[in-house]
Amino acid sequence: MSHGHCALCTTDGGVVVFRHSQFRVVRAQEAGFPGFYRVIWNAHVAEWSDLPPQDQVLCMSAVTAVERALRDVLAPDKVNLAALGNVVPHLHWHVIARYRWDSHFPAPVWGTAVREVPADLLEGLVQQLATAESRLQAALAVL
Amino acid sequence: MSHGHCALCTTDGGVVVFRHSQFRVVRAQEAGFPGFYRVIWNAHVAEWSDLPPQDQVLCMSAVTAVERALRDVLAPDKVNLAALGNVVPHLHWHVIARYRWDSHFPAPVWGTAVREVPADLLEGLVQQLATAESRLQAALAVL
Repeated sequence: MSHGHCALCTTDGGVVVFRHSQFRVVRAQEAGFPGFYRVIWNAHVAEWSDLPPQDQVLCMSAVTAVERALRDVLAPDKVNLAALGNVVPHLHWHVIARYRWDSHFPAPVWGTAVREVPADLLEGLVQQLATAESRLQAALAVL
Repeated sequence: MSHGHCALCTTDGGVVVFRHSQFRVVRAQEAGFPGFYRVIWNAHVAEWSDLPPQDQVLCMSAVTAVERALRDVLAPDKVNLAALGNVVPHLHWHVIARYRWDSHFPAPVWGTAVREVPADLLEGLVQQLATAESRLQAALAVL
């Protein structure tokens, strides 16, 4: 089911790094957070508990594979996972590599920045994204 | 494994509404959000992807059961799910009933309030919590 007014039914919602028949993984391109990806369920489903159990298992397997690839390659201090959807109620999981030095740590990324981040730290992460994405593509290909 | 310095190893982390051998569900008692619960994994695990697959399925089944009970009884406009753990890196899922009228909507609960909420709306939710908790206890008892 597709909703013509829904941004995640009508656009990819980011740079697609993996496409599965039931979900896609996109690089979110959120300023200050290079290691920010989203697992977006392709069908228009608003709430997590609307997914049948077998789809929940597939969806979380994808989230786990993305988290694992980010951990293995980007070595974050913490990974943040969230399915909010207050603005766009189409199921999508935020998977975010967090660092003690990032602009909001330890607060969630959605609040106010508490520090400026040296550009070289962000650039160091950007340089590793291709490797992280290769890793997650390989893991997701076998789901 | 228990960590003596970890707040979720040494305390329940809220009002316990359900205890399972591997997790507990607590009412978070966060101001302005009566329908805010947490599913806390009992063992000290920092990241979601540290959980073995069978434990992930159990944990998300618990999250789903809580979400479903909140939806059925509290009729939120949206449910928010999140595993952050930047401050307390011990796996816990926030399960939050959100309303268009709440203090932060549509922003996440962790930012700055955008409005004041009439006390009667919050009190209306508080009156329904016992029913929601009975519902989630019944659902969790069969996991």
